Amino acid sequence: MKPGILKGTRDFGPVQVRRRNFIFDTIRKVFIKYGFEPIETPAMENLQTLTGKYGEEGDKLLFKVLNNGDYLKKANPEALAAKDSKKLTSSIAKRGMRYDLTVPFARFVVMHQNDIVFPFKRYQIQPVWRADNPQKGRYQEFFQCDADVVGSDSLIYEAELAKIYDEVFHELKIPVQIKLNNRKILFGLAEVAGIKEQMMDMTIAIDKLDKIGADGVRRELEKKEISSAAIDKIINALQIKDLTELKNLIGASELGAKGIEELEAVFNYLSAEQTYNDIQFDITLARGLNYYTGCIFEVATQEVKIGSIGGGGRYDDLTAVFGLKNVSGVGISFGADRIYDVLQELDRFPDSASEKLQIMLVAFDQETHDYAWICLTKLRKAGIVADLYPAPVKMKKQMKYANAKGVPKVAVIGSEEMSSGKLTIKDMESGNQDSLTIEELIQSL
Amino acid sequence: MKPGILKGTRDFGPVQVRRRNFIFDTIRKVFIKYGFEPIETPAMENLQTLTGKYGEEGDKLLFKVLNNGDYLKKANPEALAAKDSKKLTSSIAKRGMRYDLTVPFARFVVMHQNDIVFPFKRYQIQPVWRADNPQKGRYQEFFQCDADVVGSDSLIYEAELAKIYDEVFHELKIPVQIKLNNRKILFGLAEVAGIKEQMMDMTIAIDKLDKIGADGVRRELEKKEISSAAIDKIINALQIKDLTELKNLIGASELGAKGIEELEAVFNYLSAEQTYNDIQFDITLARGLNYYTGCIFEVATQEVKIGSIGGGGRYDDLTAVFGLKNVSGVGISFGADRIYDVLQELDRFPDSASEKLQIMLVAFDQETHDYAWICLTKLRKAGIVADLYPAPVKMKKQMKYANAKGVPKVAVIGSEEMSSGKLTIKDMESGNQDSLTIEELIQSL
Repeated sequence: MKPGILKGTRDFGPVQVRRRNFIFDTIRKVFIKYGFEPIETPAMENLQTLTGKYGEEGDKLLFKVLNNGDYLKKANPEALAAKDSKKLTSSIAKRGMRYDLTVPFARFVVMHQNDIVFPFKRYQIQPVWRADNPQKGRYQEFFQCDADVVGSDSLIYEAELAKIYDEVFHELKIPVQIKLNNRKILFGLAEVAGIKEQMMDMTIAIDKLDKIGADGVRRELEKKEISSAAIDKIINALQIKDLTELKNLIGASELGAKGIEELEAVFNYLSAEQTYNDIQFDITLARGLNYYTGCIFEVATQEVKIGSIGGGGRYDDLTAVFGLKNVSGVGISFGADRIYDVLQELDRFPDSASEKLQIMLVAFDQETHDYAWICLTKLRKAGIVADLYPAPVKMKKQMKYANAKGVPKVAVIGSEEMSSGKLTIKDMESGNQDSLTIEELIQSL
Repeated sequence: MKPGILKGTRDFGPVQVRRRNFIFDTIRKVFIKYGFEPIETPAMENLQTLTGKYGEEGDKLLFKVLNNGDYLKKANPEALAAKDSKKLTSSIAKRGMRYDLTVPFARFVVMHQNDIVFPFKRYQIQPVWRADNPQKGRYQEFFQCDADVVGSDSLIYEAELAKIYDEVFHELKIPVQIKLNNRKILFGLAEVAGIKEQMMDMTIAIDKLDKIGADGVRRELEKKEISSAAIDKIINALQIKDLTELKNLIGASELGAKGIEELEAVFNYLSAEQTYNDIQFDITLARGLNYYTGCIFEVATQEVKIGSIGGGGRYDDLTAVFGLKNVSGVGISFGADRIYDVLQELDRFPDSASEKLQIMLVAFDQETHDYAWICLTKLRKAGIVADLYPAPVKMKKQMKYANAKGVPKVAVIGSEEMSSGKLTIKDMESGNQDSLTIEELIQSL
């Protein structure tokens, strides 16, 4: 049997795991500093917890887990007779795999509402699964890194989340543009354009601006039978970069004015300190998902040609579907896989030396090998990441292994070293040799 | 819709996640120090990679993932007509969920054999899923923490793995007994008892010694129609605590003698340094899984009544099923969930202060709240885990929140504090108050 893995899934070797952990740890550290606390939810949820939460397309992309045992016994007989896969599913699969971290979080908040102190600031870094068609940069299993606050509508949290983006990408050494907009502004724009009822059509068209340009957006809007006067107003508004200027255009809409006021408050909080990256208002930012109701975020980088590497926003009603109403929330997500690709392409992963082998011991014969084991024991006792080639085979083979492992230093132990107690330490890069006692070696590492 | 989670799965809140991470981090740190490198494999594997690897019972406990789209189209028509669930499965589910970390590791080694430098020391800390009947301490989703070396039969690795157990449980402050045996010794015992062909029956019976006692083992062996002379020999051997003494009994068996010799070498390596815990030969240790061929390990604690909290052993043929022969390996596993329960019961989780809120800011009105935000910004800039109540609501409400969060210190900011630049710092435990500038506060934290 020739072993393989499923399309859209990946194995991660040591280098990749370390680099991925560097990204996760960097994000986690900033989440923690900002007072966010970790939660974890199960990989499998009741299928009905997930169904209907991600639209029709999302339902198709949910992985469903087959019931165990004689699952056909309880299978829907009509669906079975009609060979209706879609209808049969719920009778043979009661489990679904986590599709994102937001719905499980909402479910968590409602279930544990009596133990939670609100506002509740949580972060969650876990894998999710989607039956998407695998392609470059799109996987069926990938990690999400989310931070959300629920139970407060304070705009301080919008400012905090923008600052988290700012700090994380500063730490990762990826210069970014952090774009902010507000769904209320988009609603106000639709209102003053006289197409209040088509606000979502407008938002979806604007969302494509990057890909299809202003003319493309115009065509999309024309398709929705929006008047050319309205379209002119919208296209014109997309040029505006300044909140004050925008007031003239959409200030007449109560919701639009509220959206501007909210963003002004957020930028006011952000002005308390110089940020590392550009944080800008961008009226063209729309964010596809339609559960956002207030501020929205997106992060992009000019360094590498890639889509957004982070996004989020405020939602007013996330937990209502599970029976808990009037809980406002705001959250952001990091696209860890794309961040990995960016760092890879820019060659900006740091050398996480502390997790790698610092020294390897090699010995000439059984006697010196036994002595090397004692040296190894002392090195590890001192907290040094050290290893010993497992047998005193030919020196060439041992050195080849050390080389392949990328060890910076090798301690060569022969009978002379053993009797003098001074190990020969070879620097694998420079080729220099040194003679050190085990205590001196521990000091030097 | 009332939200719930699946039987056998768990939500983890902030305290639990931090405590679980303490266990994982402790184990990981020791793995790394001993030169083990991390890998990660996908949650879902080709179902055929998993099927047949865990015995018939294991196949039943595998979670299978339903194919997406119109899965009934390619369903086995006969199985469908006969409503044969077992037969139908492979035609409607090509994915299975990770059942342990050993089989995916074997698959990984074979797939990546050309990129791997042998001996390959890997560790892996990931969740696995089993459709076991949920009960206290047994879950359908749980984490495994494994370390394995493949590509060498050096007994140094047995010693290293025993030392890893020793160090990890020392760090976790759980005194343990680390038991060692060797499958070759059990084989030798079967041989000298004249029941070579029934070695597995004997091993399975011995494995139950803890639960059923020597008399129970005798009855089990009688059921297998083993002669009473042979049984006497076996029961007698189970009293032996000393390897030298054992030589008299089973030294005549070549394999038995080899097993003793191997264990002696391991104990010789271990004698290089005083260990923290007892590491002892235990002839009654059998380990159920039958792929072990050499040394076997098990870890138990007397502190809490619970089963083994770790186990492992050497296997000679793990990768053969995927086409790579003659690769010897040895590995251990930590039972993280049971370790959690032990630490919980002993109340020995440390205070992981660095991940928790160090100080919370509260303010009286909008003006001081804006000032508090600037103070917060400075604290976080200095790396302090700090938070601000999001709005200047009634002080009582803000203090209640700080209390519920378990924050050790609260900075109270009123107009006086704002004008003097000296914040009132309240110690939440002692109730003491202090007056500090933001710089002094940063110093003190």
